[in-house]
Amino acid sequence: MFDRYDVIVVGAGHAGCEAAAAAANLGSKVLLITMNMETIAQMSCNPAMGGVAKGQIVREIDALGGYSGIITDKTTLQFRMLNSSKGPAMWSPRAQSDRKRFAEEWRLALERTPNVDFWQDTATSLLIEDNKVCGVRTSLGIKIKSRSVVLTNGTFLNGIIHIGEKKFGGGRTGEKSATGITEQLVELGFEAGRMKTGTPPRVDGRSLDYSKMEEQWGDEDRGRFSYTDVELPKEQRCCWITYTNSEVHETLKEGFEKSPMFTGRIKGLGPRYCPSIEDKINRFAERDRHQIFVEPEGWNTVEIYVNGFSTSLPEDVQYRALTKIPGFENAKMFRPGYAIEYDFFPPTQLSLTLETKKIENLYFAGQINGTTGYEEAACQGFMAGINAHQKINEKEDLILKRAESYIGVLIDDLVTKGTEEPYRMFTSRAEHRLLLRQDNADIRLSPIGHKLGLINDARLEKVNQKIKNADTIVAYLKNTSIGPDAVNTVLEIQGTPGISQNVKMFQLITRPQISFADLRKADTIFDKLLGNYDRETVEQAEIKVKYESYFEKELEIVDKMKRMEDQVINPEFDYHGLISLSKEAREKLMKIKPRTLGQASRISGVSPSDISVLMVHMSR
Amino acid sequence: MFDRYDVIVVGAGHAGCEAAAAAANLGSKVLLITMNMETIAQMSCNPAMGGVAKGQIVREIDALGGYSGIITDKTTLQFRMLNSSKGPAMWSPRAQSDRKRFAEEWRLALERTPNVDFWQDTATSLLIEDNKVCGVRTSLGIKIKSRSVVLTNGTFLNGIIHIGEKKFGGGRTGEKSATGITEQLVELGFEAGRMKTGTPPRVDGRSLDYSKMEEQWGDEDRGRFSYTDVELPKEQRCCWITYTNSEVHETLKEGFEKSPMFTGRIKGLGPRYCPSIEDKINRFAERDRHQIFVEPEGWNTVEIYVNGFSTSLPEDVQYRALTKIPGFENAKMFRPGYAIEYDFFPPTQLSLTLETKKIENLYFAGQINGTTGYEEAACQGFMAGINAHQKINEKEDLILKRAESYIGVLIDDLVTKGTEEPYRMFTSRAEHRLLLRQDNADIRLSPIGHKLGLINDARLEKVNQKIKNADTIVAYLKNTSIGPDAVNTVLEIQGTPGISQNVKMFQLITRPQISFADLRKADTIFDKLLGNYDRETVEQAEIKVKYESYFEKELEIVDKMKRMEDQVINPEFDYHGLISLSKEAREKLMKIKPRTLGQASRISGVSPSDISVLMVHMSR
Repeated sequence: MFDRYDVIVVGAGHAGCEAAAAAANLGSKVLLITMNMETIAQMSCNPAMGGVAKGQIVREIDALGGYSGIITDKTTLQFRMLNSSKGPAMWSPRAQSDRKRFAEEWRLALERTPNVDFWQDTATSLLIEDNKVCGVRTSLGIKIKSRSVVLTNGTFLNGIIHIGEKKFGGGRTGEKSATGITEQLVELGFEAGRMKTGTPPRVDGRSLDYSKMEEQWGDEDRGRFSYTDVELPKEQRCCWITYTNSEVHETLKEGFEKSPMFTGRIKGLGPRYCPSIEDKINRFAERDRHQIFVEPEGWNTVEIYVNGFSTSLPEDVQYRALTKIPGFENAKMFRPGYAIEYDFFPPTQLSLTLETKKIENLYFAGQINGTTGYEEAACQGFMAGINAHQKINEKEDLILKRAESYIGVLIDDLVTKGTEEPYRMFTSRAEHRLLLRQDNADIRLSPIGHKLGLINDARLEKVNQKIKNADTIVAYLKNTSIGPDAVNTVLEIQGTPGISQNVKMFQLITRPQISFADLRKADTIFDKLLGNYDRETVEQAEIKVKYESYFEKELEIVDKMKRMEDQVINPEFDYHGLISLSKEAREKLMKIKPRTLGQASRISGVSPSDISVLMVHMSR
Repeated sequence: MFDRYDVIVVGAGHAGCEAAAAAANLGSKVLLITMNMETIAQMSCNPAMGGVAKGQIVREIDALGGYSGIITDKTTLQFRMLNSSKGPAMWSPRAQSDRKRFAEEWRLALERTPNVDFWQDTATSLLIEDNKVCGVRTSLGIKIKSRSVVLTNGTFLNGIIHIGEKKFGGGRTGEKSATGITEQLVELGFEAGRMKTGTPPRVDGRSLDYSKMEEQWGDEDRGRFSYTDVELPKEQRCCWITYTNSEVHETLKEGFEKSPMFTGRIKGLGPRYCPSIEDKINRFAERDRHQIFVEPEGWNTVEIYVNGFSTSLPEDVQYRALTKIPGFENAKMFRPGYAIEYDFFPPTQLSLTLETKKIENLYFAGQINGTTGYEEAACQGFMAGINAHQKINEKEDLILKRAESYIGVLIDDLVTKGTEEPYRMFTSRAEHRLLLRQDNADIRLSPIGHKLGLINDARLEKVNQKIKNADTIVAYLKNTSIGPDAVNTVLEIQGTPGISQNVKMFQLITRPQISFADLRKADTIFDKLLGNYDRETVEQAEIKVKYESYFEKELEIVDKMKRMEDQVINPEFDYHGLISLSKEAREKLMKIKPRTLGQASRISGVSPSDISVLMVHMSR
């Protein structure tokens, strides 16, 4: 009934969809198995993509040839560049999406990807021979053969939903959970754990009083995620901001004794940086209010997502507390918030390609690895899909470096350090974040996507042109002088001292108060020059020229680290034989099997002196 | 958390959606409870509305102020008037819909209906006091109060899905079943039974060879369901026809020994007139082929619905047989077909308002009453929603007569005769089908919808104008003479004898060969007159004038029956006391409690002489 596939992807969330698309676009015959073809690419939690550090990941996926950016752009309700008042390393695109459109566009994109087949069913176990995966078995009892398998089970593995004191099995509310896979993997020697995540109630937008909230509009001159020219919806929708207050908190506290979080009924750890409202009240007792983002679920629907109010308290407590929030006095709930516990596998059991160390050709991506977030899931799926394809075709692994991408940071963190609570990306996790910006993801990664064959010549050429044009702009500023008469008015308006003689324009742009916009006013030739280029090119040039010295310093550091990062360790290396290593280092190194000396240095329990021992040994 | 509602509707399929909309539009505060807000108004089986007798029902719902016609029109992929070569009583509109759009438009329509609230949860029992329903209890343990409840559980009550020898609980594939309600109702003395239905596999349109199939396009000058001016999609999509063959049949037979149908694992009876392919092969062994309609699931998706190939054979048998159908040689399945067994309640336990006789203010609609089909479900939901509202407001019941609507026929059939297999509407079930046409549903029912308050003055006025204009056209034909010179050429072309002297045009139009189009050619004033009116008015006039004598005869019959149909029997009447009745009649009459003498006469086991006894008794 089924031919043997190259890659079977289990699960069709953000990770599974990207995995299927990537492997198929590289030429693998892919089967995407999903429990319900009507719920492909559901945004199970908030209807939004991007945000701090996460927006950068979406840009990176796009630069490499993934779909998340394109789908997000097509379905954007509202776009905002977060942190735009800070330095460019902090700029983070974020978009509200139309939930239904997002899922629909993903499904259509996959249908239009040759080599992706679909099968509605539940994978209940893996087919394994000689420690190599060779397919899956489904709940219909069908054996489907494949050369590799990517598991992206999300919250479905033994999922249990909690609302107050009630609990029931489910992968998402209203959907079944999946069993079998965990049990088999544990039997095979995998270590498994439990995590939890949660989601807020949804309410009826018709029942809210928006006059009591702050409007939050998208950027007027809005950006985008994809470097392709996918068309954006013309309009944007308004969101709103409101706040909890002490009355809300007191009401919520009445439910604490029934909270599955506080009574210990939930064993799994939740995402520290995406806490439930009861967690926030508990942990930040000094704060008398928390921000609530009131986000529409789509273009036409009245359903509203109450962002910031994730909770698993009893539904009546949720309701009573909600109605104490300004604007929510008459709120009607559509669905209560809930927490969900699910199985994950500590990701130190994976290599940097996301392949499991125990079972060959088996890859894990997304929440199964202990991460949280759509973007984190999507990029893992994408990388696992690529590496699954590369491996079975005996092609080079795709391992992104920490210095070139957030994706590299994420995977290196997971695989090297593991995680005990849902892992979320932050800019602070990237030591070279100055270089890993949303504006230059294309410059950093398009050559890699192109080399793989995931982006075409035209796209690469566009990136090269952008680099060239930005350089032209920078060269102009470095080579062109400007005099006091031309520029002093502008300088004065921006509150920075005038000049008394001609200076290179470059000198002025490095002043924090001065932007390209100011120089355009002072120099008509410069204004005309910029008029030749698109927004992203001009932005790139401005960032480049303003922060050049910082970037150069950062690049020097990267260069110094390079020796360690490039020093590959034989995966068969027997650390036990190296008795100069501490006992702990030997154990950890044997477990993680770091790919490079750099990775080894980041393993907790491996000290700088252990690294010296390794360096000395390897230089012999 | 919840105020007391007027009407709680359990389930958001075709029945539940119409029930919620109708009750809310009448002014009731309605709560619609659904297991998953993402799957409201799913077309669980084929993505199409209407068809023989069913299309008439959708027109009737629309004329009364329901939504099914509007939603269908908005989401039509392809429209065909079935049986258009037969008499107008047989004309039946049918539309392919975009499955996702259909569900989405329904949800939006409900969201835009004031008074409809939503709650995502599962009703697990009814709250009952003194044999009156007063709310529901949900799986979250919440008690929600209401003045009435409409149950539209579809296939979810103890649903069991069968594929070959495998079976698992579920309300639809990939969705949970619902438990609790049946058990409670049985405890309360309700009789419950099992039925089954099924659905065919879905396949990947990219894997089909359409050159081996017949194209089937929609009507060029297409009609519509709704009498409102809702806009239709501009384009239509092609469908295809192919056929099974003996090879397909032989392959399917290989799976018969594992068929849950034939091995007795499925206890419930399936829809006789919508049989599975294995049923067709078994029952019509002489036929060496069966028609397969190859229907796209939407505007953009590649998913294809294999209409005519419903099956619960093992999935590998399904697959092998599919690939023997011309055009399906390389077919890839997305999901296998399956059968589903579910609980229903014999509908003789209901009164003509669809209220249960045992529990006051409790209404059943849709598959829970043993029917099959979206249209059958929708109209029951609509009627139950109306009657729930009317009852709690002490307003008049809405009981449609058999002589005025298919809806009346359907409910009278169900309540009076019950059903042992899934009940589907046919034109042959309506004794006055000549009058119950798709073209005049507005004329028949708009006054009722208007009186209820479900359609506005403008809509009623439009209907009255249509009647008036049609009458003007008919009067012209009756009053205007035409001579041989003007008309004989046209008559000759149509193969009917010429005239030798002036005759009234009316005489010519009654000839079967002659249509309005012919007379327009012969008489420019007539042509101009028709040019003043819209398509539906002209069609109405033509049908009226051509079939006038048949309609008049039918109306006479209706009139004769009227005495019986209007003769209302006291619902408290004690038939046991009337010993001249046969014992069987007494028992049946006590059980059914017919509303009228007419209804009594249709109860199986009640003979004409029993009716005479009743008539004599009542005339005293």
